[in-house]
Amino acid sequence: GAPGAPGYAGFPGQAQDPLYPYFSAVAGQDGQIDADELQRCLTQSNISGSYKPFNIETCRLMISMLDRDCSCKMGFNEFKELWAVLSAWKQHFMTMDKDRSGTVDPEEMRQSIASMGYNINPNALVVILKRYSTHGMIAFDDYVACCIKLRTLTDAFRRRDQSQRGVASFAYDDFIQCIMSI
Amino acid sequence: GAPGAPGYAGFPGQAQDPLYPYFSAVAGQDGQIDADELQRCLTQSNISGSYKPFNIETCRLMISMLDRDCSCKMGFNEFKELWAVLSAWKQHFMTMDKDRSGTVDPEEMRQSIASMGYNINPNALVVILKRYSTHGMIAFDDYVACCIKLRTLTDAFRRRDQSQRGVASFAYDDFIQCIMSI
Repeated sequence: GAPGAPGYAGFPGQAQDPLYPYFSAVAGQDGQIDADELQRCLTQSNISGSYKPFNIETCRLMISMLDRDCSCKMGFNEFKELWAVLSAWKQHFMTMDKDRSGTVDPEEMRQSIASMGYNINPNALVVILKRYSTHGMIAFDDYVACCIKLRTLTDAFRRRDQSQRGVASFAYDDFIQCIMSI
Repeated sequence: GAPGAPGYAGFPGQAQDPLYPYFSAVAGQDGQIDADELQRCLTQSNISGSYKPFNIETCRLMISMLDRDCSCKMGFNEFKELWAVLSAWKQHFMTMDKDRSGTVDPEEMRQSIASMGYNINPNALVVILKRYSTHGMIAFDDYVACCIKLRTLTDAFRRRDQSQRGVASFAYDDFIQCIMSI
């Protein structure tokens, strides 16, 4: 699972949480945000820093990663969880992006994926790295999209690979629903 | 398979093809276009009409749908094939979008998916329709993204469901490569 948001133990309620103003500025009365609102919220909070705002599709991926009730929306607790994950990914990306170009090269990305513990064969990795590259380099937005898909797909696969043999069976409906909802 | 581009039989070469100027304006010396270039090309050709330019992620889906050599690029023949498919989808979308709002409702989308011959159970459909909706409606861009994913995933599933029982087995690497490359 994702690490919890750090360091807020001293605050008694979410209204005092330093992340809450960003969330509440876009959340509706139901206390939930959709992909559109998440995109605005992340842009306003400046988590992407000097990097450009997240693509709306990446925001949808962020929601689907944590969307346990299939609402396609996100509450404040999920937002905090997302924030912690994004912060870790940004930190890691900035370490790789030494010249602050906003991009990393495929070899750095390959090492990054290996360091997350994924065991993917070299041929598959070549395809993946090409898919998330623009002019041979990987931007932060695409790095995040790739990390989320790897995590979500690996989780979905593991739940169906009950004997842990690295092989999973899908019925057509299950396959379509599982992948189309990401 | 996709229908061929109609009505160009009278032209002897691609230089005379009415679609060629749009393609050649963005294609590099290798005669191939990437997702970035496809986005510009489709915007300039105005195929999305009154609808806004396609999201870069939708352009990547368009390339992956026809990308037989895993180059993440598209030649002129694939571009013509894409054009024919997009034109058909646009025609169909405009028929549904009677008030020219640029969006259709989930029920219209559900009928549209059924009319394409996909046999997806109601629960999976609810999830899919929610995923591709914004404020309860489906825009042309998301309609196209949904159609491409359904087609590509169904093709990928069928190739692995050799006994045609509606069940397919995936090894982890194959699963990750298959889905991550879309």
